[in-house]
Amino acid sequence: MNIILLSGGSGKRLWPLSNDIRSKQFIKIFKTHDGSYESMVQRVYRQIKAADPNANITIATSKTQVSTIHNQLGEDIGISVEPCRRDTFPAIVLATAYLTDIRGISPEESVVVCPVDPYVDDVYFESLKALAEQANTGESNLVLMGIEPTYPSEKYGYIIPKSNEILSSVATFKEKPDAATAQNYIARGALWNGGVFAYKLKYLLDKAHELIDFTDYEDLYAKYHTLDKISFDYAVAEKEDKIQVMRFAGQWKDLGTWNTLTEAMEENVVGNGLLNDRCTDVHIVNEMDVPILAMGLHDVIISASPEGILVSDKEQSSYIKPYVDGMEQQVMFAEKSWGSFRVIDVENESMTIKVTLNAGHSMNYHSHRNRDEVWVVISGQGGTVVDGMKQNVKTGDVITMSAGCRHTVTAYTELKLIEVQLGSDITVHDKQKFDLEYD
Amino acid sequence: MNIILLSGGSGKRLWPLSNDIRSKQFIKIFKTHDGSYESMVQRVYRQIKAADPNANITIATSKTQVSTIHNQLGEDIGISVEPCRRDTFPAIVLATAYLTDIRGISPEESVVVCPVDPYVDDVYFESLKALAEQANTGESNLVLMGIEPTYPSEKYGYIIPKSNEILSSVATFKEKPDAATAQNYIARGALWNGGVFAYKLKYLLDKAHELIDFTDYEDLYAKYHTLDKISFDYAVAEKEDKIQVMRFAGQWKDLGTWNTLTEAMEENVVGNGLLNDRCTDVHIVNEMDVPILAMGLHDVIISASPEGILVSDKEQSSYIKPYVDGMEQQVMFAEKSWGSFRVIDVENESMTIKVTLNAGHSMNYHSHRNRDEVWVVISGQGGTVVDGMKQNVKTGDVITMSAGCRHTVTAYTELKLIEVQLGSDITVHDKQKFDLEYD
Repeated sequence: MNIILLSGGSGKRLWPLSNDIRSKQFIKIFKTHDGSYESMVQRVYRQIKAADPNANITIATSKTQVSTIHNQLGEDIGISVEPCRRDTFPAIVLATAYLTDIRGISPEESVVVCPVDPYVDDVYFESLKALAEQANTGESNLVLMGIEPTYPSEKYGYIIPKSNEILSSVATFKEKPDAATAQNYIARGALWNGGVFAYKLKYLLDKAHELIDFTDYEDLYAKYHTLDKISFDYAVAEKEDKIQVMRFAGQWKDLGTWNTLTEAMEENVVGNGLLNDRCTDVHIVNEMDVPILAMGLHDVIISASPEGILVSDKEQSSYIKPYVDGMEQQVMFAEKSWGSFRVIDVENESMTIKVTLNAGHSMNYHSHRNRDEVWVVISGQGGTVVDGMKQNVKTGDVITMSAGCRHTVTAYTELKLIEVQLGSDITVHDKQKFDLEYD
Repeated sequence: MNIILLSGGSGKRLWPLSNDIRSKQFIKIFKTHDGSYESMVQRVYRQIKAADPNANITIATSKTQVSTIHNQLGEDIGISVEPCRRDTFPAIVLATAYLTDIRGISPEESVVVCPVDPYVDDVYFESLKALAEQANTGESNLVLMGIEPTYPSEKYGYIIPKSNEILSSVATFKEKPDAATAQNYIARGALWNGGVFAYKLKYLLDKAHELIDFTDYEDLYAKYHTLDKISFDYAVAEKEDKIQVMRFAGQWKDLGTWNTLTEAMEENVVGNGLLNDRCTDVHIVNEMDVPILAMGLHDVIISASPEGILVSDKEQSSYIKPYVDGMEQQVMFAEKSWGSFRVIDVENESMTIKVTLNAGHSMNYHSHRNRDEVWVVISGQGGTVVDGMKQNVKTGDVITMSAGCRHTVTAYTELKLIEVQLGSDITVHDKQKFDLEYD
C-alpha cells in the first residue's frame, strides 16, 4: 500500500504543547506498551506498519516540520516538502508527483491519502487497504472513506451516498452544516468526510496537468509558490462523476482540542503531576521538570511546557486560540532532526540554552554578527571546528566564540552543551551559514 | 516603642512559593503604591515605621532566615538569632536579653511582642502603641491584645476577660476549641489570643531567671540548645495574676493558607498570567518567566515557582501539607543577603545555576571536593580570587575551577553569573570554606 499522510500546520489550540514550530501531531502523549510515550505521528506510523509492513509511507508537509519528523520517525521516512503553504490540492499533487518521479512508483498503482492526526484503532488501517484495493479495480476514479457519524457535528463536511451499501456511488457533497442540518443529513444516511481517499497515481497526475502547467516533480516544486490555493475537494472530488464512498464504522476521532485529546489519554497524568482524591476528570500533561499538584478540581486540563502553563475547564479549552495569539511568544524549546534545544535563561543582554546533539549529528558551520557565545560541555564527546581549527571536546570543556567567529560541533556520542549567548541584540535571525572546508 | 517580631518557621502550606528555606512571610505578594510588590515582613516593617518612625524593631528568628531578612529589610535591622528552634518562651527571653544586653535598652522600658505575619491595617499599630503604654504604667505585668472574633474559629486560643471594657483583667485562657465551644466562648465575651502582648523588659528577665539558670544574653545564647521547649503562654501568661487584656476590633487576618492569602490580594494576578472572562474568583501568583493562561475556572488558586505548580480549589488548598511533604524537593531558588540563585538545569552529572550577586557582596572563599565549576559572567563587573590569584572580570569572561580549587567572586556592580557544576556527586554539602588571605 502507498500512503500519503498530510501533516498540517501549526496548531495553537493545544498550547502550550503546540506552538509555531511544534504542531499537535508531534506531542508525545500516548502511552505505549513499554511505558514510554509516542506522538500522534509516531502512533499512526506504527499502526500503518503493523497493518502493512511493506507500506510505502510519504509525509506531505512544510519545511518547518521536516526536522521534527526525522527526529520522531528516523531519517528513512519519505517526505514531500511543500516549499510554501498552499491548500490540499497542490500539496497532494506534489506528493503524488514525488511518488512517481522521485520514488519511482508506477503511475498504475494506487495511493491512499489521509490526515496524519486522526485517533483511530487498527481496523481503520484495514479500511485504508480496502480503499486502495478498490481504487486498483478502476471501477471509479476516486474512492472516499465515509465515516459513520456518531453525532451531528458542525466540524465536518458530509458525503451523501446513493445507497446504504458498504460501497456506494456518491450522490453529493455538503459543506459543514449547522447541527440541525447535520441531523437532517444523518437521517438521509450522510457520512462524515474525513479527508481520506484513494486513487490511481496516474488519475491525479492527469487531473493536475489539466489544471496546472508543469512537466514533472522538479518543475512543480520550482513553481509551487505560483500555484493557487485550492482544496482537493473543490478542485477534484466535487467535480468527479466516477466517485465512490466506502463506509467506515470504527473509532475515528479528531484530537484537535484539549477536550478531545484528553478523552484519548489512557492515564490522567503524563509527566510529573499529582491529583488529590478530590479531583474528578482532571488531566495533567506536564513537560516541565517541576511537579504539578492539583487539588479539588473537576473537568480541568492542566498543561505545562517551557512555553507556558494552561489551566482550563475542558469545554472552555476549545476557545483558546485568540488568547494564545495575543501572547508574545519566544520559542523556548524544539526537537530537531539533530537533537533538541531548550532556553533555560533569558536576560536583557544574554540568553542561556541547553543543546542536546544526537550522536553523529552536527550543527551547521555558522557565525553570528552581534553576539559572542560560550559552550560548556556538560556530557558526551565530540569535535568542534572554530574558525577552521579542529579540536576534540569532552565533559567540562569550555569553548569561547567571539562574534564573527565561525563554529560548529559534531557529536561523537550524545553531546549536551550549555550555550551562553552574550550581546545586546540576540535573535535567531543573526546566523550566517558557511560551507565547512577541512584543510 | 520597642517591638519584637516573631518570625516563624518554614511553611509548606503556601507551596510552591514557600519552601524549606523561604517562609511565607517572605513571599512578595502585596502590591505597593509604586507598583512593586512587598512581602508580609516588608509590609509590617513599613507599617510599624509609619506608625512610629522611632520604633526599635528586633526580629526574633532562626539562622536560616537571617540572610533573607537582610535581603528584604536591609543590613541595619536588629535580629535576635535563635541558635536552634525552641518554643516561644526561650525565643522571647533571648530577644528580650538581646534588647537589654546588646542593644542597651533600659530594663524599665516596655516591649511589644507580635508575630511577623498578621495581615492588618494601620489601626493595629496604634493598638500596639497603646499596649506598650499600658505596660509602661505598671498596672499589670503583662498586657495582651484580645482580638474581637469575627467567627467561631478553631485555629486560635481564646482569652476570657473579666469585663467588656476596652481594658480588662483576664479571667482565664482557653485552648483551641471546636466550633461549638468557640461559639459558646464568644457568647461569653471571649477574645482571640493572637500572640500579641507587651511587658516591661525587667519583668520578663526576672521571670526568665526564675526558670532558667543564665547570666546574660551571651550565656543564654551559649546554652540555648539545652533549654526546654515551652510556650510563652504556658510558661508565663497562664500563670500570671497581674495580667490585662486590651480589646482590638480592627482588621486582623492570619494569611496561613492560599485561601486566606488570596483574600488579601488586591489583584487577581501577580506575575505573568491571564484570566479569560469565564473565570470567577481565580487568583494567579506566578514567579516563573512563562505565562499562565486560566480559562473557565471558579474559586481556584494557581501558583507557580521554580519549585512547582499548584492548581487548587481554594478551600481544598488548606489540605496541601501532606502532599508537599511527600514530594522530593530540591531547593530551586533562594534569596540571600548577598543576592539570589536559581537552578536552571539539572542533569545526571551536571547542574546549571544562575547566580545574582548584589553590588559590594562576595561569596565565601570556598572549594568543592567532588565537582568542577565554570562561571560565565553574563552581566556586571567584579573580581575573582581563584587559588589566591586575583583577577577582574566582566561580561563574557569565563572562569574554570577544578575540584579542590579555592574560589570566590566579589561584585563591584550587580553581577550575574551562569555557574555550571560538573561531577557525579553534586550536593550543597560539598563545600569547604576558607579564610581569604590576600598576599
